[in-house]
Amino acid sequence: MTLVSKFRVAPGGRAHLGRRNPADLSAFPDREAAEAQSKADGEAINTLQDRLYAEGQRALLVVLQGVDTAGKDGTIKSVFKETGPVGVLVAPFRAPSEEERAHDFLWRIHKACPPRGFIGIFNRSHYEDVLIARVRKLAPTSEIEARYDQINAFEKTLAETGTTILKFMLHISKKEQRERLQARLDEPRSRWKFNPGDLGDRKLWIKYQAAYELVLDKCSTQWAPWHVIPADHKWARNAAIAAIVRATLEAMNPQYPKPKWDPKDFKVV
Amino acid sequence: MTLVSKFRVAPGGRAHLGRRNPADLSAFPDREAAEAQSKADGEAINTLQDRLYAEGQRALLVVLQGVDTAGKDGTIKSVFKETGPVGVLVAPFRAPSEEERAHDFLWRIHKACPPRGFIGIFNRSHYEDVLIARVRKLAPTSEIEARYDQINAFEKTLAETGTTILKFMLHISKKEQRERLQARLDEPRSRWKFNPGDLGDRKLWIKYQAAYELVLDKCSTQWAPWHVIPADHKWARNAAIAAIVRATLEAMNPQYPKPKWDPKDFKVV
Repeated sequence: MTLVSKFRVAPGGRAHLGRRNPADLSAFPDREAAEAQSKADGEAINTLQDRLYAEGQRALLVVLQGVDTAGKDGTIKSVFKETGPVGVLVAPFRAPSEEERAHDFLWRIHKACPPRGFIGIFNRSHYEDVLIARVRKLAPTSEIEARYDQINAFEKTLAETGTTILKFMLHISKKEQRERLQARLDEPRSRWKFNPGDLGDRKLWIKYQAAYELVLDKCSTQWAPWHVIPADHKWARNAAIAAIVRATLEAMNPQYPKPKWDPKDFKVV
Repeated sequence: MTLVSKFRVAPGGRAHLGRRNPADLSAFPDREAAEAQSKADGEAINTLQDRLYAEGQRALLVVLQGVDTAGKDGTIKSVFKETGPVGVLVAPFRAPSEEERAHDFLWRIHKACPPRGFIGIFNRSHYEDVLIARVRKLAPTSEIEARYDQINAFEKTLAETGTTILKFMLHISKKEQRERLQARLDEPRSRWKFNPGDLGDRKLWIKYQAAYELVLDKCSTQWAPWHVIPADHKWARNAAIAAIVRATLEAMNPQYPKPKWDPKDFKVV
């Protein structure tokens, strides 16, 4: 579990985001080896997910956060490539609808949580309510300040009732984001992903990083830890997350249920 | 589109289920070639799904029905292996909950329909409400008789509002089911999939086949056609469905959206 501790923000500790290098390759000095390991981890995740589904008692929730172009979709495609869509629920969160805004900010999140036996993946999450909401002042400060504890309490209940939670911040540099945004403009097939509004968020880069730092400091808990994943290199990002997801599922160690009946009692005619 | 017409129940025609051989291999005389074609189709489906998601205007709904062990989960894993979980929503339907039973039978189905840009896959569906409901008399006959037209009207609305619908009956023989149920009993890792209740449904085999025949005769429409897929051979089943899904997505021909702005108007700084 050395990879886990390398990237995990120690609960109660400080994240020191500025000291974390988005291009850090110290965990994966060799690209080819990392890619081979990712593939092996993906296959192991698939097998473990089958067991989780068969067991039907617990869930895994993977939360992905990051600035635009950080690679949330790409991570899901890579890490859960082998797993496929059965037993995996991807929930993307965009700006809340009118109905969602008529409820507390955790209402739509709770609805999208994975049932027992499933892996749920949040592409963005309730953390937007303390990220964009903070940077763009979408709610009164006192409300936003209260949300960190509300989130911790919510996640604690999820964890206590059978959901293992892993949170990943995909950490990219401002320079890397520029290249990726420019690539979206340059490549006709990627152009649809470019949202002119992303340039506005980019101008608020420092404020977003500060808001992320607060999240990491306040909401990395024993029951729902944050991991800061160096994400300038996509293959190293995929390798890190696949390894942590695999290790977590292995620690959960889901089991095929043992039926209460004896197979010899049945004859298929 | 010869494969499509081979397996499609002509709208307005009769299915003649008894004349359809569950072990028919005439479409796939060579297993190796079929498996290679399946893989190529899976990769094409992945590319087309990306375009569907990017376009964000239309949806594809794939309905899978079949008796126990017919291979619904296995089909999803094989056909959408390359696609992965992003942009694909799998909805398994089990016995309805108390809340679901408090609504009309299409309420929970409608909720689970894919949004624009997505592929939705139903593992069982509203057709259970004219299959098990008919065989086990779970509702008054007059209510069940009314459901076929209600289903056709519902699916017509879905089709008219942007959802392409493909329905597949995985057609296995009674003998093949016996072998698969026995294998679930014999293989410790599969034992959790065995449900003693399945043996009760197996005793009602003829009634289920008759109920399926009614579904195929009444609900294969221009806007939501049924296909009867010979499913005794898993690889032939996968090849047939992958080919039809691919051909359907190709006919939909989703396009990457062309932004209204000119990429040259933006500079990423």
